[in-house]
Amino acid sequence: MDKLRLLTPGPTPLPENVRLALARDMIHHRKQDFKDIMIRVQDGLQYLFGTKEPVMTLTSSGSGAMSAAVTGLFAPGEKVLVVEAGKFGQRWSEISETHGLDVVALPLAWGQAVKPRDVENALSRFPDISGVLVQASETSTGVLHPVEELARLCRIKNKLIVVDGISAVGISPCPMDEWGIDCLLTGSQKGMMLPPGLAFIALSDRAWHKTREVRPRNFYFNLQKEREKCLSGQTLFTPAINLVVALDECLRYFQKQGLENIFKRQWAMTRMVRTGVRSLGLELFAGSNYTWGLTSIRLPPGIDGVKLLDTAAREYNVLMAGGQDHLKGKIVRLGHMGYVDWSDLLAGLYTLRNVLVRQGGFSGSRDYLERAMAAYEEAMDRTYCIER
Amino acid sequence: MDKLRLLTPGPTPLPENVRLALARDMIHHRKQDFKDIMIRVQDGLQYLFGTKEPVMTLTSSGSGAMSAAVTGLFAPGEKVLVVEAGKFGQRWSEISETHGLDVVALPLAWGQAVKPRDVENALSRFPDISGVLVQASETSTGVLHPVEELARLCRIKNKLIVVDGISAVGISPCPMDEWGIDCLLTGSQKGMMLPPGLAFIALSDRAWHKTREVRPRNFYFNLQKEREKCLSGQTLFTPAINLVVALDECLRYFQKQGLENIFKRQWAMTRMVRTGVRSLGLELFAGSNYTWGLTSIRLPPGIDGVKLLDTAAREYNVLMAGGQDHLKGKIVRLGHMGYVDWSDLLAGLYTLRNVLVRQGGFSGSRDYLERAMAAYEEAMDRTYCIER
Repeated sequence: MDKLRLLTPGPTPLPENVRLALARDMIHHRKQDFKDIMIRVQDGLQYLFGTKEPVMTLTSSGSGAMSAAVTGLFAPGEKVLVVEAGKFGQRWSEISETHGLDVVALPLAWGQAVKPRDVENALSRFPDISGVLVQASETSTGVLHPVEELARLCRIKNKLIVVDGISAVGISPCPMDEWGIDCLLTGSQKGMMLPPGLAFIALSDRAWHKTREVRPRNFYFNLQKEREKCLSGQTLFTPAINLVVALDECLRYFQKQGLENIFKRQWAMTRMVRTGVRSLGLELFAGSNYTWGLTSIRLPPGIDGVKLLDTAAREYNVLMAGGQDHLKGKIVRLGHMGYVDWSDLLAGLYTLRNVLVRQGGFSGSRDYLERAMAAYEEAMDRTYCIER
Repeated sequence: MDKLRLLTPGPTPLPENVRLALARDMIHHRKQDFKDIMIRVQDGLQYLFGTKEPVMTLTSSGSGAMSAAVTGLFAPGEKVLVVEAGKFGQRWSEISETHGLDVVALPLAWGQAVKPRDVENALSRFPDISGVLVQASETSTGVLHPVEELARLCRIKNKLIVVDGISAVGISPCPMDEWGIDCLLTGSQKGMMLPPGLAFIALSDRAWHKTREVRPRNFYFNLQKEREKCLSGQTLFTPAINLVVALDECLRYFQKQGLENIFKRQWAMTRMVRTGVRSLGLELFAGSNYTWGLTSIRLPPGIDGVKLLDTAAREYNVLMAGGQDHLKGKIVRLGHMGYVDWSDLLAGLYTLRNVLVRQGGFSGSRDYLERAMAAYEEAMDRTYCIER
């Protein structure tokens, strides 16, 4: 009888108005009423991305948009620097290699954020690098990379900076034009409170110039052609129409609430969970450079993380994510993005403590929930900031 | 106050249970309850495709699955024969050329079905052709190609036959294994009564062997890796979860009704519309090789087809499709696939006649609706067959 609580870092629970929008009967994507939606949606997407450039809607997962960026911006043989600080950093390398780029990887221990100095050194060592590929938020570790500083550096060095904003856009500040990001992309199932199935991508003016030098070599992901269609309220191929109709609802919500308030709430939820976790005597996996949409927690030695998540799901109906690859079983990733609130997080923290207690050898403070809520309330009264 | 009638050849109206399934709250694609759905869905997809091979679910439009087929099955420089009998035949060529294949086009007048003899001649002329790319149903013209005969020929000649079944699967017979099709694909928004956003693709045993000889060069569309995931009830990337949940509903319906009955109804609706159109003294654009999911109608000289569709939409709330490219304004494509019934088609035929009368110079029989219904009733009492 307990309610399902989906506390994974995407997909996320959906608000009722989004769900009802998904249930609407079909309309035709080449007719005026859909174009009207697309034009309204364009306005909301530009607000969300912080850009004056068109934001294109692709029917794919976020990895599709990453493929579009790689194949649209770089020709085979071109050299790119990839910040590899987790599973999704590695994905940049895999996509780049599949499509024939020459990858210079900047590998970091999972859990670390990249230092701008290290990127600067790599760019000096390989002056023929064309662009830097990075995550704003590395979803596999819960780490936020210093995109603002990296973008500034890339402007100075005249390199393109391509940012996977999949668990950052709509969650923590990542204003594309203000920071000078050349390509920003995201997926629908993270901060946007939508199901998966859509991806969004925008390019800076100099990135658009770069696409014209690259022969299109991906039929389905063709940024130039998508741009032309986008400007007339269409998409290159038949889009996931229901998801676009729901997107319209979601963007209305973002515009009405204001991004500043969305970010503050995300920041407050993050501080709430981090405080709760620390109060339990558990170790936060990400240091001061933490993502605002999930909290990664290192499990005490001897705890089986896979079993822990399984118990949480079965006994408490609370779904959290575990570590990926070599972190499997060793960390928990508690998601607090999308349609999640403080009360869901109380359930998440309570569940986390109790499954640890049940696995034995664990006792934490008994006022961790109070402390977590105090941190939340305090943060909601303050001005958020990205810690460094 | 009139109800919207979406009589386009995709997207199509949605049944209520599909719409309610779309509105369900999110579940996680890496957890067991979603895997259970994927395994059940796999069973239904294999029934729908008429295959024992795994049918993979991609999050993309149908063109994404076409790209997956081209890049998965053929290496750059390989020669393929493309049956170009309309816009989607041309799309095979565009995709193949974008991905570096050597295209031998077999161009046909739009409205014509390919003759197996012409394919045979082309294969003799270019013995180094690796595969034949064709539509089962060419949606731009309403023509059904003789896939069964082409597949037989390709077996004899030892060529791969790759079939775009986008407006055929679930509409008219196209049993993959029985006919010996090497690759069959479709999209969700045609016969399947779902919104767009998913595509489905299956490969024969010898096609799977062929994929192993081709270096994967498309990161997002990777058939080998999708297959591995598919066998464990997953997808390579985050799928459009709500659409998969709705797919489960749709496939249950197909399995309950039985494909034979689905096909019969599609055939009866096609005969109904064709009879109505002929009774009005209008010319059918597709001869005896007609698609079962749409009827293409050549407009009388002097009729502005764009204006006609516009009036039908504005005054009758009936949405039909027009011709594409050089057929723009010259034909109407009346869709009868997905969640459409005889009553919707009465509305469609009535609207078609009346907008023609309003544009002037047109008068047709006044018993065309009765004749259309008689054809429908008669067909429902008979055994369907693909005319040749």
